[in-house]
Amino acid sequence: MPAGRSVDVVDLVERARAGQPRAVARLISLVENDSPARREIAAALTRYGGYAQVVGLTGSPGVGKSTCTSALVALLRAGGKRVGVLAVDPSSPFSGGALLGDRVRMQDHAPDPDVFIRSMASRGQLGGLSVAVPYALRVLDAARYDVVLIETVGVGQAEVEIAALADTTLVLLAPGLGDGIQAAKAGILEIADVLVVNKADRDGADQVARDMRAMQWLGGRCAGPAAWRAPIVKTVAARGEGIDKVVQAVDQHHTWLVEHGELGRRRRARAASEIEAIALGQLRARFAAVHGSAALAAAAARVAAGQSDPYAAAAELVTGILRTNSLG
Amino acid sequence: MPAGRSVDVVDLVERARAGQPRAVARLISLVENDSPARREIAAALTRYGGYAQVVGLTGSPGVGKSTCTSALVALLRAGGKRVGVLAVDPSSPFSGGALLGDRVRMQDHAPDPDVFIRSMASRGQLGGLSVAVPYALRVLDAARYDVVLIETVGVGQAEVEIAALADTTLVLLAPGLGDGIQAAKAGILEIADVLVVNKADRDGADQVARDMRAMQWLGGRCAGPAAWRAPIVKTVAARGEGIDKVVQAVDQHHTWLVEHGELGRRRRARAASEIEAIALGQLRARFAAVHGSAALAAAAARVAAGQSDPYAAAAELVTGILRTNSLG
Repeated sequence: MPAGRSVDVVDLVERARAGQPRAVARLISLVENDSPARREIAAALTRYGGYAQVVGLTGSPGVGKSTCTSALVALLRAGGKRVGVLAVDPSSPFSGGALLGDRVRMQDHAPDPDVFIRSMASRGQLGGLSVAVPYALRVLDAARYDVVLIETVGVGQAEVEIAALADTTLVLLAPGLGDGIQAAKAGILEIADVLVVNKADRDGADQVARDMRAMQWLGGRCAGPAAWRAPIVKTVAARGEGIDKVVQAVDQHHTWLVEHGELGRRRRARAASEIEAIALGQLRARFAAVHGSAALAAAAARVAAGQSDPYAAAAELVTGILRTNSLG
Repeated sequence: MPAGRSVDVVDLVERARAGQPRAVARLISLVENDSPARREIAAALTRYGGYAQVVGLTGSPGVGKSTCTSALVALLRAGGKRVGVLAVDPSSPFSGGALLGDRVRMQDHAPDPDVFIRSMASRGQLGGLSVAVPYALRVLDAARYDVVLIETVGVGQAEVEIAALADTTLVLLAPGLGDGIQAAKAGILEIADVLVVNKADRDGADQVARDMRAMQWLGGRCAGPAAWRAPIVKTVAARGEGIDKVVQAVDQHHTWLVEHGELGRRRRARAASEIEAIALGQLRARFAAVHGSAALAAAAARVAAGQSDPYAAAAELVTGILRTNSLG
């Protein structure tokens, strides 16, 4: 072992593959903390990929995402599946750690060694989650979790990008949380592979389902006959009702993905985004290394004072990076 | 005029400054369409900055953001102010244009030449809005709009970043759209300079206000005595009730910003983000120019097939960019 190497990557990966949750947790922490070992870990994980079925779960605050995740975990476990959960909060660069809130409900599954649950928040780094989440996915995949659920907090762009890591994306709706047009505005019809109308025992649930069907009809007029049309499933997740139908819809979608060559295409697109996010992160680090934070602050002060414009300032910084390399 | 230049930037900027909305619209379109003229425009706008008061407005779908924006515009116009509105939808890379939806309500103001309204959607480019929105802000600022309202669709990270462009950020809440913990999870207490509880005529509005006060108390225990504590204002925007109190709170916050040197600090931070976003965009363009899209797709296919890892692939691409420069 080379001197000064504090992480035995090969051993950690082996232990993760043997089903040790602490090794899995450690591997994920290493990338979250920008450990220099992360490249080596990524290399060690390479040949173990493509095993897990990845399911994204998104929707506005209040629709019952955590309850639904919890019910899905219970059902999948009853079927003997090992389940990983990544609860991602891209909108929380501030709190320095996700608020527990309804995470508490997930505690039911905490003693089960075949359920791995992890909260991830962005810590304010640009591209932080776009690197860390696919990496965590890679770790869980290598550790042979059959299903990985990625739950995100809202339906903003960051959530949409994270949901795009999934093979199948569930979008949750609930009555009383804004009408169909607002759902469509948030771009959810386009990303949903399965639409779940939760809290279906409340007034207005049928209306939400009808609105969704109408919007689908509007949006789908130009789609070919082979296109996947997201089924609409009603649930009362708090009582576990309809969750079996959700799992069924996910499996049907998975079969469709495989039959249409879409699974490979989605996974290649996911890899491309991941590579690009890492590459931009590397360029950004180089940025800081070449200029230091003071250079950006000085340029910003000139722009704020009306002495320079942001394009000129940016061009100067970029040229600086490239020039330094050619000398080095 | 140099041969081949199709945009008379100096003329456009002069006309925008003279109050011609079409010139303002044209300048914004030029950057949205990645016109090569955008650098020249940014340079021409440089000395006209720092005039407008910039107010961000965010909140979950359904809280009544557009109604509130419309009511604010009406009140500010009654006070003789010229108002710009940027309605930003970062979660809509798919629809190829913002759905009209409640934009319709803003049509009341359409015939007024002293109100400029613009919808901006991300068109799927990474960093697209983080470049285009501050630029549009610059255009409206140079065109002497007294107040610019930036309205965003949700409370995801992208929305939070866009709200951070503002001098003062309003966060809208409404009864029945999730509890205080969920609001806190979305990071909104940290970004709110003014908390607006809209639909205050509905059941539960007082509870929302109480929850917010309690969360503020929890969050504010460590803040110094000079810290700004977001006032909580109740409104019924659809009837214009409480909007005067919102404007009052915005003005109080503005005074506080000036007195504490915070306005300059915020605007410098805004310029720094803008420069960085442009610089990353330039590096990204260089990326595409050096490698072509085929190289990324090929690398992604290798990663998806388990033949390479994303860090190795990214490092190869970055090295390619830097090497090409040193030869060129």
